[in-house]
Formats: sequence, structure tokens, C-alpha cells
Amino acid sequence: MKLGMIGLGKMGANMAQRLQQGGHEVTGFDPDAGARQALEAKGAASADSLQALVAALPAPRVLWMMVPSGKITDDTVDALLPLLDRDDTVIDGGNSNYKDSLRRAAVYAEKGLGYVDCGTSGGVWGLKEGYSMMVGGDEKTVEALRPIFETLAPGKAQGWGRVGPVGSGHFTKMVHNGIEYGLMQAYAEGFSILQHKPEFALDLHQIGEIWRYGSVVRSWLLELTTDALGKNPTMQGIAPYVVDSGEGRWTVDAAIELGVSAPVITLALMERFRSRDSDSFSDKLLASMRNEFGGHAIKSE
Amino acid sequence: MKLGMIGLGKMGANMAQRLQQGGHEVTGFDPDAGARQALEAKGAASADSLQALVAALPAPRVLWMMVPSGKITDDTVDALLPLLDRDDTVIDGGNSNYKDSLRRAAVYAEKGLGYVDCGTSGGVWGLKEGYSMMVGGDEKTVEALRPIFETLAPGKAQGWGRVGPVGSGHFTKMVHNGIEYGLMQAYAEGFSILQHKPEFALDLHQIGEIWRYGSVVRSWLLELTTDALGKNPTMQGIAPYVVDSGEGRWTVDAAIELGVSAPVITLALMERFRSRDSDSFSDKLLASMRNEFGGHAIKSE
Repeated sequence: MKLGMIGLGKMGANMAQRLQQGGHEVTGFDPDAGARQALEAKGAASADSLQALVAALPAPRVLWMMVPSGKITDDTVDALLPLLDRDDTVIDGGNSNYKDSLRRAAVYAEKGLGYVDCGTSGGVWGLKEGYSMMVGGDEKTVEALRPIFETLAPGKAQGWGRVGPVGSGHFTKMVHNGIEYGLMQAYAEGFSILQHKPEFALDLHQIGEIWRYGSVVRSWLLELTTDALGKNPTMQGIAPYVVDSGEGRWTVDAAIELGVSAPVITLALMERFRSRDSDSFSDKLLASMRNEFGGHAIKSE
Repeated sequence: MKLGMIGLGKMGANMAQRLQQGGHEVTGFDPDAGARQALEAKGAASADSLQALVAALPAPRVLWMMVPSGKITDDTVDALLPLLDRDDTVIDGGNSNYKDSLRRAAVYAEKGLGYVDCGTSGGVWGLKEGYSMMVGGDEKTVEALRPIFETLAPGKAQGWGRVGPVGSGHFTKMVHNGIEYGLMQAYAEGFSILQHKPEFALDLHQIGEIWRYGSVVRSWLLELTTDALGKNPTMQGIAPYVVDSGEGRWTVDAAIELGVSAPVITLALMERFRSRDSDSFSDKLLASMRNEFGGHAIKSE
């Protein structure tokens, strides 16, 4: 198929390349000229504006957005709206909040435009291994995009699917990332317990390698963790500071909104907040309380 | 190698079969005659007592114990002690507490007997896929057992290793199971959030299948979970009652003893306790408190 790729960062560029390798004709747009040139070097075309991109595509147009969630996605969706014709389709492959996708899709639907939300997992490994895609949108629109998903996925009928109407793709991806927080935290805590048992002098990389084969905890995340422990067994030079990029918060928001108990996912998110609080007010207050009622010594800074 | 297998339950019988298929000569003992006959039907020999088993093996003897942890393991270890000669080795392949393994190994060492603790993962799938084994023991003793581990493991040099001295094998397996609790809980919570969003009518089995390929949360546990959702999408007939068999508690005990923060593993354990408390005293007390300070209605039984 012919399609436009909007956003040629790590994810967008890799996806454009995988599509191109799969026989599709990609025209890419990114405000950064270097990103456009890099794409052209891989055999795809490029356009230097959204207008030029839309003009370069045959109707009905297919445009895949791979841009940061939030304002940049809103700006792109708004800028495209007057440029598109009935039956053109925009796919948001980024990590948008599903409520934003519902809102944007409603605006597009009013104009007879297709809007599809695709939760995309796989990170920088996707180019080689394929992307896991959770697709939301009406059946006819998604079906028309099938060749694209079949190429981006790990296998033609593997690792992708229409999970429901618009919004459901990003909702599912959001929960996927919430699960990811919990899995990561569980592995991290376990390896930390092993690391705190010096009399056994455990080799964490070796243990990760053992667990990769035949154990109940084997997973792709374990493989990445084991590789990291192999490169840097003591985690030297890495600050104990864990960023979150929103999907964990949204998952907890959704659990609260739906009244579903999700304590481990919630706690995994809170642990990230804690990791960034090197000057914890609550810890200081706890130390003060112990001093107040028990006369226990306070450690001074 | 020639070895004795003590305990021909699901795990022991499967391991004996895998060893026999790998060219070893296994003699199995189990108090249950039916288990012994089943083993003989697979080409291995059997003995109807520990005495007979020990007598049937050439010195130095190798005995693999695959029996329930706690009293039965203690009884077996005690019963074997007077039957064995210097340089015989007993391997505890079960889920013993590592502190028990340290204690038992010390008694064996006094008599010049080898004692090896092997944390074994893989469950009923191990027969086909091989077992992940975390082995504790002195280097010479473990090295002499190499052919056994190479056969039981998923690959000759895959999925097993000597992780440290006696005790370290079961310590590592204990933490492995603690991680497993956290992973399971994270998946369960995520699927529960998806299940509580009826307007998207999500097919949890389909989503699990999508995630199996290319996603960041892909794992063996996800595959099992997805299979379970395929067989029984609504979890019909399954009581929301989750058993724990001890390793999660020991992991939390170890975290407390070592002063290591492991909140998600701990909470995953507490969630299992909660699942078994259908008549929660703390929930009743909370409802009472709300009534006391705010006059909020109490739901009666």
C-alpha cells in the first residue's frame, strides 16, 4: 500500500523502514530535515510539510502518525483535518490516552474521515522482530489497513488484531504498559533480594541466564534484564531514578474510575515516584514522629 | 549415570523419565506401589524401600530427592543418613526452605556425605521442555553430577548452573517464586481492568494472543494465562481463591531479614491471603468506622 508516515523518530523511522522492506511505498514527513534524509537513504520518499505529504498520496489516503502523545498529536490531528478528504484515514500509532483518541475520532467521524488508534509495543526491537499492535477502529476501516498491520507485525496473523472500536486500541495498550510496570518491579525486587545476600556471592547475570530456559519466570523482559546485568553487574553509574511516561498513571486512573482493585500495578507506579524523591518529606516526617513518641535519634543531614 | 529417584509424584516421575530417556539408569522409590509400577513401565527400575534403593546403587551413590518440603524431606534425609557411605550424595530437588537445606547439609558434611540443594522450576512442562535448575553445593560435588543436570535441563548448557554453596540453590529458587507471585499478580490485575470495560467488549484471549508476539509483556506465564482465557474466557466455575505454598512467604521473610524493600512481591502475597478471606474482618471494621464517624450506611449480611 501507499501510505504517509508522520514522525520519523526512532519508532516512526523504524516502522517506515519495515513497511518499505515489506513492499509498501512510504512517504515520510518530519520537521527535521536530517530525519527525512535518513528515510530517503533507505529507499522511501519524503515530504517537507504535512501539505506536501497529503498531496503526494493517492486518495483515499492513509496516514500513520508516530509522534509524541499529547500536544504534538493534537496539533498534528488538527493540522491534518482541513487537508484531508472523505474516506482518508489517520492511524495514531503512538501512546495516546484512549480518551483523547475517542475525542479526536469523534471530530474526524463528523467529516467522514477514518480514525484508528493503534497501541504499539516492541520498542527499538520492533524493526527486526515486528511490532505488537492493538488496533481500535470500525471493522471496515481496520480491514482496509490489513496489509500494513500484517507487515508491521511479527507475523502476518501474529501479534496484531482489531480489539474493538476506536479507543480500545489505546486502552488495551495502556493496560499493557501498566502490566509492564508490575512485571519490571517484581523482577527488580527479586534481583535486589539476591544481591543483598553476600554470603552466597550470587552472580545475578548467571541466575538470569538460568531462568531464561525452562523456568516459570522466563520472559522477554527477563532477557533484557539479564543482558543488562551481563553488561553492568553492579549497575555502576546508573542513578536509582526511574522515569514514567504516563501510561502507568492512566492505568491507575482507569482502575480508580472503574473501581477495580489493581494494587500491584499502582504500587509499581508509586515506587517510580519514590525513586525520584531523594529528599523524601514523608521519610523525614516519619523520623520526626519516632523521635516525638519514643525519643529515637534522628539522623541529621 | 546410575542414580536413585526418591519420590515418584508428578515431578519425580517426570524427571526420572527424562533422565531415563537421556541414557541414565534410574531406580525409583516411592511408598506408593502404583507409582513404582508406572515408573517400571517406562523402563526404569524400582525399589520398595529406601534400604533396597540404596542397596541397588553402586558407590558412590547418587540420590535425587523429589518429595514435599518440610517434614517429609526431613524424615527422608534422616532415614537415609545411616544407610549411606562416605562420598555418597543426596540432592534435594524440591522446594525446601534454604535454611533447612543449610541445616541438613551440615549434618551430612559431618559424615563426609555430599548434599546439594537444587531449586527446580518448570512444573509439569519440564518433562518435555526441560527443567530450570539453580544448584547449590560445593564445586566438586556439583561437577560430579553434571551429566544429570545436563539431561534434566532444557539444553546441555542451558537453564541450569551452580549458583553458589549449599543453600544458595534453594535461596535462588525461593526468590524466583517470589518474582513469580509479582508477575502473576500484575497480569491478573491488567486483565481484570480490561474485563471491567464492557463498552469495548474486549476479548481477553485475543489480547493475550496479540501480546504473545512482539510485545514487551510477552512471557511464558502470559502464554499459560492466554491458554486459560481461551479455554474459559469468563473464568466460570473457578473460585476466586488463591493458594500459596510457602515460597512467597519465605521470600518476604528474607526481604525483612535482609532489610530489603520488596513491596510488590509482598503485596502479591498479601493479595493471595485476601483472596481466601471471604468474610474479611478488616472490611467489616472499615464499614463500622465509616458508620461511626460519618453515619454512612452499613451493608448487612
